[in-house]
Amino acid sequence: MLYLFDLLGCAIFAFSGALAAGRAKLDWLGVMIIATITAIGGGTVRDLLMNRHPIFWMQDPCYLYLTCLTGLATIAYVQYLPIPYHVLLVADALGLALFAIYGAQLAAAAGHRGIIVIVMGTMTGTAGGVIRDILSNQIPLILRKDIYASAAIVGIGIYLLLKKLKWRESWAFVAGFIAVVSLRLLALTLNWQLPVFNLR
Amino acid sequence: MLYLFDLLGCAIFAFSGALAAGRAKLDWLGVMIIATITAIGGGTVRDLLMNRHPIFWMQDPCYLYLTCLTGLATIAYVQYLPIPYHVLLVADALGLALFAIYGAQLAAAAGHRGIIVIVMGTMTGTAGGVIRDILSNQIPLILRKDIYASAAIVGIGIYLLLKKLKWRESWAFVAGFIAVVSLRLLALTLNWQLPVFNLR
Amino acid sequence: MLYLFDLLGCAIFAFSGALAAGRAKLDWLGVMIIATITAIGGGTVRDLLMNRHPIFWMQDPCYLYLTCLTGLATIAYVQYLPIPYHVLLVADALGLALFAIYGAQLAAAAGHRGIIVIVMGTMTGTAGGVIRDILSNQIPLILRKDIYASAAIVGIGIYLLLKKLKWRESWAFVAGFIAVVSLRLLALTLNWQLPVFNLR
Repeated sequence: MLYLFDLLGCAIFAFSGALAAGRAKLDWLGVMIIATITAIGGGTVRDLLMNRHPIFWMQDPCYLYLTCLTGLATIAYVQYLPIPYHVLLVADALGLALFAIYGAQLAAAAGHRGIIVIVMGTMTGTAGGVIRDILSNQIPLILRKDIYASAAIVGIGIYLLLKKLKWRESWAFVAGFIAVVSLRLLALTLNWQLPVFNLR
Repeated sequence: MLYLFDLLGCAIFAFSGALAAGRAKLDWLGVMIIATITAIGGGTVRDLLMNRHPIFWMQDPCYLYLTCLTGLATIAYVQYLPIPYHVLLVADALGLALFAIYGAQLAAAAGHRGIIVIVMGTMTGTAGGVIRDILSNQIPLILRKDIYASAAIVGIGIYLLLKKLKWRESWAFVAGFIAVVSLRLLALTLNWQLPVFNLR
Repeated sequence: MLYLFDLLGCAIFAFSGALAAGRAKLDWLGVMIIATITAIGGGTVRDLLMNRHPIFWMQDPCYLYLTCLTGLATIAYVQYLPIPYHVLLVADALGLALFAIYGAQLAAAAGHRGIIVIVMGTMTGTAGGVIRDILSNQIPLILRKDIYASAAIVGIGIYLLLKKLKWRESWAFVAGFIAVVSLRLLALTLNWQLPVFNLR
């Protein structure tokens, strides 16, 4: 069940990566590469920092098949149908929430302190998008605007708090997940933004 | 023998890295750093992901001496002689082929599945150039055009196929190597390109 | 004592990272993230390459608290007071020197050869700044001009030489540290630069 969700999250992020690759005019292989990196980059950085080997996609190649296929499917899709930006934003919020809480769960299970759990979860949810933006030669989106990484941080905080209050793992997971999704979608709807630090 | 080829591959990639550094107007130390990263970046990422320690250049510092010297030699060379672009393209194809099949061989020897072997080999051959382009603030070349990573993928595929057909390791290696070089040079000569995904 | 210096070095680098984030108009969370990455990026790359786990900031979360707080403090500070560029340059030289010699010490203690010690120390002192520049979409400063990485390299060389001459560890440390700081500040004062490799 969680595994299926995880694959779904990968497909969503791969889709957003493939669209970014299209805007940067990459070739088909480049699209598959960017789609894959966007989807699995966050978990890879997490596994490297936490010294978890083999890296998750090296153990289970389904992830790579899925992201490459999603990249190709995206190319085919946009020839015929409009890009469903609204659906995509909701799907992306689901992917962010899932990856963030799942990454946090792994770090908590490894016995890390609260702040490390937050960093690992947030990184799992966002690092793929950061690498995608670096490869497309842009300042990473999540650093510039929007409640994105912050939604992940708050949701992981709630997950950790509920665990401390002795909630069952699965309930804390669901609550954290819902918190990230709600916060992200609320921020999009109401156009919430963090204040900007503008030096000149 | 393979070791000498490996050093040769490093020198070629260091040369291409130093030229990129010259185009970005870096200082002499920057040239040595970019030359080194271009040459050893791919193998470093591979070793980190496969949890191979010590990283190959930490065990054998010849690689670092060679790449730094190549960087300096490039600076001296271009003062007096024209850049041999045609020779460089052939040399680069040889380096790509060698690194790709060698990386694939390491991954196969570690017991990884076919798709992981392909990813590791392709990464060994191309990640250094990707990091070089990121450091020079460009969208990585291999994502934009040309049969480059794709030549590596096809060659590794042939290497794996021949191994499955019970060819001897060294013959499969040579066949894969020749496949990458031929495909890359054919693509350059005939101007083959992968189709581009252009999203406006 | 060394630990306090290490935290001080982190705070200095976090400050310089936060200023870069302000120039790139990031939001407050982005400022904290860039401040943190600038401060701990070099040590993280070093720990990954040397297979030192847990990564230093995962074991001791003080680093993360400090860098995030420094990021926020920077935002508050620049509202009311001018940026002390001259103080910052001196502070940055101290941070560079400390991180470089400390990284070198760790690599030497792990039994690595001289050139690897130099690479690890220089990387500890400079990689954070390189990642900061990549995230702000600029060609890394240290590759373009200034005696920066080169000051670290010379200082580490002196540290290694004195160790070989049987100086006590702490004295060699201090001598290397002073060498880096002096060289960096002299270079700033006298406007020393490495020659540039300008291709076209």
